[in-house]
Amino acid sequence: MPKQVDHRERRETIARALWRVVEQRGVGNLSLREVAREAGMSHGQLQHYFTTREAMLTFAMDFAAEQAGRRVEHGLAELGDPPHPRDVLRVMLTEMLPLHADARATSRMSAAFVLEALHDEHIHARARDGITQGRATVEQLIRRAIADGYVPADRDPVIETNLLLALTGFTPLLELDVIEPRDTLTAIDHYLDRLFTDKKAAPGTPPA
Amino acid sequence: MPKQVDHRERRETIARALWRVVEQRGVGNLSLREVAREAGMSHGQLQHYFTTREAMLTFAMDFAAEQAGRRVEHGLAELGDPPHPRDVLRVMLTEMLPLHADARATSRMSAAFVLEALHDEHIHARARDGITQGRATVEQLIRRAIADGYVPADRDPVIETNLLLALTGFTPLLELDVIEPRDTLTAIDHYLDRLFTDKKAAPGTPPA
Repeated sequence: MPKQVDHRERRETIARALWRVVEQRGVGNLSLREVAREAGMSHGQLQHYFTTREAMLTFAMDFAAEQAGRRVEHGLAELGDPPHPRDVLRVMLTEMLPLHADARATSRMSAAFVLEALHDEHIHARARDGITQGRATVEQLIRRAIADGYVPADRDPVIETNLLLALTGFTPLLELDVIEPRDTLTAIDHYLDRLFTDKKAAPGTPPA
Repeated sequence: MPKQVDHRERRETIARALWRVVEQRGVGNLSLREVAREAGMSHGQLQHYFTTREAMLTFAMDFAAEQAGRRVEHGLAELGDPPHPRDVLRVMLTEMLPLHADARATSRMSAAFVLEALHDEHIHARARDGITQGRATVEQLIRRAIADGYVPADRDPVIETNLLLALTGFTPLLELDVIEPRDTLTAIDHYLDRLFTDKKAAPGTPPA
């Protein structure tokens, strides 16, 4: 196996071990030593791949974002072609919520990363860039949906984008079992139905 | 000074020291030892007030919720009498967001508490109870607003409550400087305007 691939694989193994530490024991136990133990390697071996806690965390977050991106791609592939913008937004939003095991792992990683960002400038900048990029994708989708007549023209794309992103606030409500996954999806569907004039409009024939 | 009061005061001093540790150095540094240092007392002195990390965290969270409750009361006192339900919801929602220093401290405490809840059953139960109680208050307000004709009768109170609570998802967006406080308030005002048929309806004379 080429060294490059092996290196990448080991780093992914470490990232998954880091996720498990965050998920099972909390960000409070997140040290190079603790992750090495979870990954079944020595502290020295782990340091061959990551020399600092920050570098390890950043890679684990990038890998989480990449995995979430793949889940979204997979979800989009199951939609019509071209997919309805309402369904695209639904896939993007629900994959950010802890509604199944994989999404829960990346969601918890993300929450831990945000908390780390509060007292680490470098992580703050990385987290900000990542979310700002995601936000731009959503805004572009909404602008397009307005231009194509799927969303009423009097909706403000910036406001609608910000509100959609804010709905990731279902995360702590789901994690604490305050709201059931089913009720979360019901609320999101109602929200999207109100945003879109006609969710069942066939692609290519937007509502007038 | 009666011993009871002194005891309470010392516990509040410790809670505020704990918030500062969470805010400035992250939940990863949250130990009895670290909080004792921040509070300017010995580890032994701190253990006179809290014997476990969990007891200290739970008190700090209760105190944060109490402080947030006082800010809401203060905000409500500045509204008309009786206040318009839209304005009540606005005060409740915005005081949960990190839009000023005090709210930021309690918001970060709350985020840390949720992360702790993921791997501590007792904290999970406490956090769940607290948010479930807050959720019930919001639902009651919305049901009343529907009954009084402020919110259209075809709105589902459970769905509207869940969506309003989910809007606390502005928190990480504000913390990471992805969305400005001003844009957050604009989005919330638009959202509430859509929920209420007429935000300017005088109390006692709801829209028909």
